Amino acid sequence: MSDAIINRRDLDFQLFEVLDTEALTAHPRFAEHSRETFTAVLDTAQAIASEKFAPHNRNADENEPHLVDGKVRLTPEVAVALEAFVQAGFLAASYDFAEGGMQLPAVVSQAAMSIFASANMSTTVYPLLSMGNASVIHRYGSAEQKKTYWEPLMAGRFFGTMALTEPQAGSGLADLKTSATPNPDGSYAIRGNKIFISAGDHALSDNIVHLVLARIEGAPPGVKGISLFIVPKFRVQADGSLGARNDVALTGLIHKMGCRGATSTMLAFGENGACRGELVGEPHKGLRYMFHMMNQIRIGTGIGAVMLGYRGYQASLAYAKERLQGRAPTSKNPAEPPLPIIEHGDVRRMLLAQKAYVEGGYALCLYCAQLVDTQTTGADETARREAGMLLELLTPITKSWPSQWCLEGNSLAIQVHGGYGYTRDYPVEQYYRDNRLNAIHEGTHGIQALDLLGRKAFMHNGAASQLLARAIQHTLEQADEADNAAELQEFTTALGAALMDMASTLQTLGAALAKEPERTLANASVFLEVCGHTVIAWMWLRQALAARRGLATHTSTDNAAEQAFYQGKLSTCRWFYRWELPKTRAWHALLRSLDDTALAMPDGGF
Amino acid sequence: MSDAIINRRDLDFQLFEVLDTEALTAHPRFAEHSRETFTAVLDTAQAIASEKFAPHNRNADENEPHLVDGKVRLTPEVAVALEAFVQAGFLAASYDFAEGGMQLPAVVSQAAMSIFASANMSTTVYPLLSMGNASVIHRYGSAEQKKTYWEPLMAGRFFGTMALTEPQAGSGLADLKTSATPNPDGSYAIRGNKIFISAGDHALSDNIVHLVLARIEGAPPGVKGISLFIVPKFRVQADGSLGARNDVALTGLIHKMGCRGATSTMLAFGENGACRGELVGEPHKGLRYMFHMMNQIRIGTGIGAVMLGYRGYQASLAYAKERLQGRAPTSKNPAEPPLPIIEHGDVRRMLLAQKAYVEGGYALCLYCAQLVDTQTTGADETARREAGMLLELLTPITKSWPSQWCLEGNSLAIQVHGGYGYTRDYPVEQYYRDNRLNAIHEGTHGIQALDLLGRKAFMHNGAASQLLARAIQHTLEQADEADNAAELQEFTTALGAALMDMASTLQTLGAALAKEPERTLANASVFLEVCGHTVIAWMWLRQALAARRGLATHTSTDNAAEQAFYQGKLSTCRWFYRWELPKTRAWHALLRSLDDTALAMPDGGF
Repeated sequence: MSDAIINRRDLDFQLFEVLDTEALTAHPRFAEHSRETFTAVLDTAQAIASEKFAPHNRNADENEPHLVDGKVRLTPEVAVALEAFVQAGFLAASYDFAEGGMQLPAVVSQAAMSIFASANMSTTVYPLLSMGNASVIHRYGSAEQKKTYWEPLMAGRFFGTMALTEPQAGSGLADLKTSATPNPDGSYAIRGNKIFISAGDHALSDNIVHLVLARIEGAPPGVKGISLFIVPKFRVQADGSLGARNDVALTGLIHKMGCRGATSTMLAFGENGACRGELVGEPHKGLRYMFHMMNQIRIGTGIGAVMLGYRGYQASLAYAKERLQGRAPTSKNPAEPPLPIIEHGDVRRMLLAQKAYVEGGYALCLYCAQLVDTQTTGADETARREAGMLLELLTPITKSWPSQWCLEGNSLAIQVHGGYGYTRDYPVEQYYRDNRLNAIHEGTHGIQALDLLGRKAFMHNGAASQLLARAIQHTLEQADEADNAAELQEFTTALGAALMDMASTLQTLGAALAKEPERTLANASVFLEVCGHTVIAWMWLRQALAARRGLATHTSTDNAAEQAFYQGKLSTCRWFYRWELPKTRAWHALLRSLDDTALAMPDGGF
Repeated sequence: MSDAIINRRDLDFQLFEVLDTEALTAHPRFAEHSRETFTAVLDTAQAIASEKFAPHNRNADENEPHLVDGKVRLTPEVAVALEAFVQAGFLAASYDFAEGGMQLPAVVSQAAMSIFASANMSTTVYPLLSMGNASVIHRYGSAEQKKTYWEPLMAGRFFGTMALTEPQAGSGLADLKTSATPNPDGSYAIRGNKIFISAGDHALSDNIVHLVLARIEGAPPGVKGISLFIVPKFRVQADGSLGARNDVALTGLIHKMGCRGATSTMLAFGENGACRGELVGEPHKGLRYMFHMMNQIRIGTGIGAVMLGYRGYQASLAYAKERLQGRAPTSKNPAEPPLPIIEHGDVRRMLLAQKAYVEGGYALCLYCAQLVDTQTTGADETARREAGMLLELLTPITKSWPSQWCLEGNSLAIQVHGGYGYTRDYPVEQYYRDNRLNAIHEGTHGIQALDLLGRKAFMHNGAASQLLARAIQHTLEQADEADNAAELQEFTTALGAALMDMASTLQTLGAALAKEPERTLANASVFLEVCGHTVIAWMWLRQALAARRGLATHTSTDNAAEQAFYQGKLSTCRWFYRWELPKTRAWHALLRSLDDTALAMPDGGF
């Protein structure tokens, strides 16, 4: 089986050696599963991803969705790939057997999705949104809505979107203007414009189900007056067959720098007064329902960012092993043959940095995905509640850190290729363009920073932050108890100090938030940075511990590849602790100074 | 006059308040000039740039050079723009009046070029390369070569290129294979392939003059056996008229992520054994001659990176003032109108960071350009020699720092625009794509780092580094003596400490280079980072000093715009000292640890 699209050894390491995903099978919900069934799912994902998704990744970029006779046309391989995806049952991977699903843990289904994302991010956007949409209807929709929409969504006959953003409001959801007026039959007349709606129009499915945020007439202003509506492209009749076209018009395609294969649309709802929507759940609770989906999608965004970084890392690693150029600094003899560039110190640095970013980010995303499982199947109520709280705290970090640092990895992948990397003949420039989206959509970096500092870090009297500190402390204790504590001591000392730094920063910021919220929040992005680097250092210590365990079981030299794999993990951990974690010192000092330079800058001084 | 393409107030500040460019007119070479003539040149550049260069920046990106009947076709506005550029005399800006030039200081002609680059980087590539090419022929060519090639290059009838890179060798110039075989008539038969040759083919001029690095048969191996040749596309006859086509074939156009308007080519020299070249200067000295051009072009690359960052900053600043969205964190009342996003702390941070990067980078590029003038017109031999040495030391920093940090600025410009910034309807995504080239061409980041640490930092027993330290020390003394020393003390204390850190790091690295060169050079990129941030902090202190002087002359409140401008400079200096300079601490510690994690990583561990 091709593993060109992902380092499967690393994924197996993350799942079965770092996370102990196999232990989930002790829970009744996953009792039918085993490491073998998990592996089979990932094998299937890998086969479909490499055969059907990866080959058209460049083609979809070069032939972006365009209009032919008013209809959106995609490169045809997208439909073929999604057909295989649907047939293999991935849409319903995490639903119960009884509902036609695979009853997989979230961590395994997210791992499978990561494989598709690594092969072709743009094509993966379609099922990703559809699955997010379906999960909202499944959770909050009526029995009838589930039958009418969720079932066809799961069958891949309908695809779904989320339609939040409006042209005038952007991230400011409080200013959404789309209106919903009750119809006599209990439905609502929807009217308004939405923008940046991914997968907003296409011919991949019989129907498209938009989940639309809108305001019912007379609703309170702001986010407390937003309701959620199902608005299908074609109305669905009582027998499930498709009826007339709903009044949802495609008003434009958006041409992006990257992720070009994923249709992005402007949609007008109710231009002719005939757009019919169905309320989901209760009025005015739309944002809460949508955030059920948003949080999933935020982890998915982190995974997407990691996988683009991962592909860049693998492409540049392969290139660095093949490309011959230059000599060691100590041997300038031009008669010697040139070296593979992986032998050059600076190229090794660029590869190691990429590895540290992408495997560190991957560990975090999968950790969060497994928290979703603990949240529902944890040993007791406390475990479940704590998993939920930790997940809430980590979500903005998981969304943002990979978007920033795996993009940096993509830049390094270009750099390893030199001039070739800047050409469209190599894949790395596309990964870089594609990944730049991830710091923007599903809540920008700035929005995540405000969420983390303004809401999550101090929620429940700081309980989530304390929980995170305890979880890190627990890993530190494990490392101290390990046989090889001496080797890990460099890491435990540094991470212990970073934890102390964090505690002190939290104290300062907590007090400051109450007194000077605007000034404190102005530096929220630095807080996001420092939390991200600390959490990723923790993820690397967890990987180092697992690598030590792995090495202990491979003491003979008969498996050199395995030994090198584990040594590589330890070296990368060391690199992160020496090159990256020390950056947090300056960030902590800056945060505690409550700097107001940007706020105090005169407008005319820009 | 439109100043949409550049903040002319800032350029004037840099030239006439920070650098005291006007003082150059005291030298006989520039005696005919005055602040007024300099200003007139910049006004002309600004008019042509905004009228002829800027309008087709997006069009040239969307309609990249392509082949029609085997000929390279560009969007027609390029030729119109370059015609205006040539007519206005910019090609010969820095040559003597006697040679038909404007006899301008290098700093003024570079400032003019920066205006063109800001308007349209891709179109500016053509004259930039032509001017670099011409300067090599002017300096090292024979009288006949100057007449045959330099004169038509200056008239814009010929355009020039530099043809160094070969497909198999990349940055490894020692492995160049292009050969030169003496012909009976004193010319050479050139044979070989070159890649990434910017402006390598087009119909903008009657002829194209390639400066080609090649090896004369029997030459020593490595870089000491490389000679430089003039290879015209069309042979030039004794009377200056064009003769037969030379055997130079376009074998392909290169399709890039950005800078798409600038043709990048693969060229085959002598495929049919009929490529005739003329030796420039003496055999085997080609690399030295070419480096005369390379160093100019490296400063030009830094300027290009700054200007792309500058445009992004201005675009996002304008957007942030217009776009209404969200409310202050302290006022969640949705009934209040939304704010211009420039009022949000995180947006202000992103704008201020961009300002710090681009204006700091601009200051460094113009400082280096003025060193070129001091090198030739300095008060005495010591001043001239020292300027040359400082320039050599600063060149890799000037090439690299803007390529890295102004690209980061471009990323922030996208982020300020939110989802819109990721679309091709706004200019910022193109700036980001265009700027990614600058860390690669004209010597990659890694090559600059090796140049700085392996060659420049310790050349002449570290004399250049000591010179730089003295120059910084001089600014610190000026700041301490200023009336308002107290206000600047935060900066002088921090920069003084950074200088001490640098001295200590240099000591460690100097000793280590002798003992463990490979290990020491493996971290050269960190050295480049730390030198860059320290030098830019110095540039910001120089600007802060000038801003204090400016404020002292505008004590009344009758010129609020000027006061805000100077206050903006002081705030940005403060921002750089609080947010950026502290990063150097961790870099210094890392450098002194001589970390060998990347070098020691097992190959199988990647």
